[in-house]
Amino acid sequence: MPEVKLLLFDVFGTLVDWHGSIAREAAALLGARGIALDGAAFATAWRDQYQPAMEEVRSGRLPFCKLDALHRRNLDIVLRDFGLDYVDEATRRELNLAWHRLDAWPDVTPGLARLRTKFPLAPCSNGNISLMADLARRNGWHWDAIAGAELARDYKPKPIVYLSAAAAFDCAPHEAMMVAAHSSDLAAAAAAGLRTAFIARPDEHGPGIGETAASVPVDLSADALTELAGRLGCR
Amino acid sequence: MPEVKLLLFDVFGTLVDWHGSIAREAAALLGARGIALDGAAFATAWRDQYQPAMEEVRSGRLPFCKLDALHRRNLDIVLRDFGLDYVDEATRRELNLAWHRLDAWPDVTPGLARLRTKFPLAPCSNGNISLMADLARRNGWHWDAIAGAELARDYKPKPIVYLSAAAAFDCAPHEAMMVAAHSSDLAAAAAAGLRTAFIARPDEHGPGIGETAASVPVDLSADALTELAGRLGCR
Repeated sequence: MPEVKLLLFDVFGTLVDWHGSIAREAAALLGARGIALDGAAFATAWRDQYQPAMEEVRSGRLPFCKLDALHRRNLDIVLRDFGLDYVDEATRRELNLAWHRLDAWPDVTPGLARLRTKFPLAPCSNGNISLMADLARRNGWHWDAIAGAELARDYKPKPIVYLSAAAAFDCAPHEAMMVAAHSSDLAAAAAAGLRTAFIARPDEHGPGIGETAASVPVDLSADALTELAGRLGCR
Repeated sequence: MPEVKLLLFDVFGTLVDWHGSIAREAAALLGARGIALDGAAFATAWRDQYQPAMEEVRSGRLPFCKLDALHRRNLDIVLRDFGLDYVDEATRRELNLAWHRLDAWPDVTPGLARLRTKFPLAPCSNGNISLMADLARRNGWHWDAIAGAELARDYKPKPIVYLSAAAAFDCAPHEAMMVAAHSSDLAAAAAAGLRTAFIARPDEHGPGIGETAASVPVDLSADALTELAGRLGCR
């Protein structure tokens, strides 16, 4: 493999357990207001609106806006679908920020620390900069910079998102490796010329619902970031 | 003072001793090739091309390009002016990267660490993302994100550079404080609605050549980042 000079990371699902975290946050926040909620079903429904919302931007029908704004649009749809249209504005705002309070999978914080001894690290996520910064603070990560959708002003899997992340670090596409738990993300990164590493997250969408192996060719596969660190020669 | 939620930093001169570092790097690099150089004069001459080069972008005469590219254009001018037009391409490339190897003033690394216990921190510099990331690695800084010219795709003192940095952290302009050693930078930040803190760097351009006090109204003044940390209630 040619020398890798930069590691780029998908975040939702790959580094953080969005499903478990959103299920917990939504159930707790609405529960405190006397609303009994199936948090897991709510998390899945909210995330189901993710790709359609970004497609409005990718297609050019909507100008670029932060993922926080798309999450809020999606939240309003899901609350209506759950018969919760009466939930007030302050609660909606607070609930939308649950995406800034996601917990990392257990291997991620030690894995990133090991990887950073050898490589510059940046998220290449569809999440906005403040969302990425808040997740890093919460989970104790040290990014060299925050790349991704807000820098590119478009959403993955559009090539510009991967290419602008590599370019921000003065890297050619083949010098950057995209690390993700989703074959579709890695296929798009590879098509843009990047190296790829698949991380298995078999419980991403809830117990037993997640990709266990890449369905596309990748340069590396691992079950955890700590394993990836070992494979890339980081102590 | 209304609550400050974000600290933004000028970098060249405010956090790093560009003059001393460039003087040292240029004299060493060209010296190793048998060229005797007045490093301090060379550093000053190189920096003298900084504002005119950015003005080409700010005015719209040139499309946005990274500061690394402007530094390289300026280097070619200064080498010619110093009668060093024969310096080869590899040396020029290496010399241009001297801007990625600048040393912090002694108070900066401990000061930023204290400030980060209470505030998110980001550079709001005209330097590009990779340059900011390299300076952070070299000097042991932990930015929450890298804002500034490359994110805004324009150069300070244009308002968009300050405003896009605050917006990336979901802050209103008045919730962000710009920290800089230059009155002109702080005047522009204040005009964009930001709070301002002046840091005295009396030796920025060489011994005794630097601003010792702000020549414009500012919210705070300090002689070091460690003093600023105390003034902002950081232990």
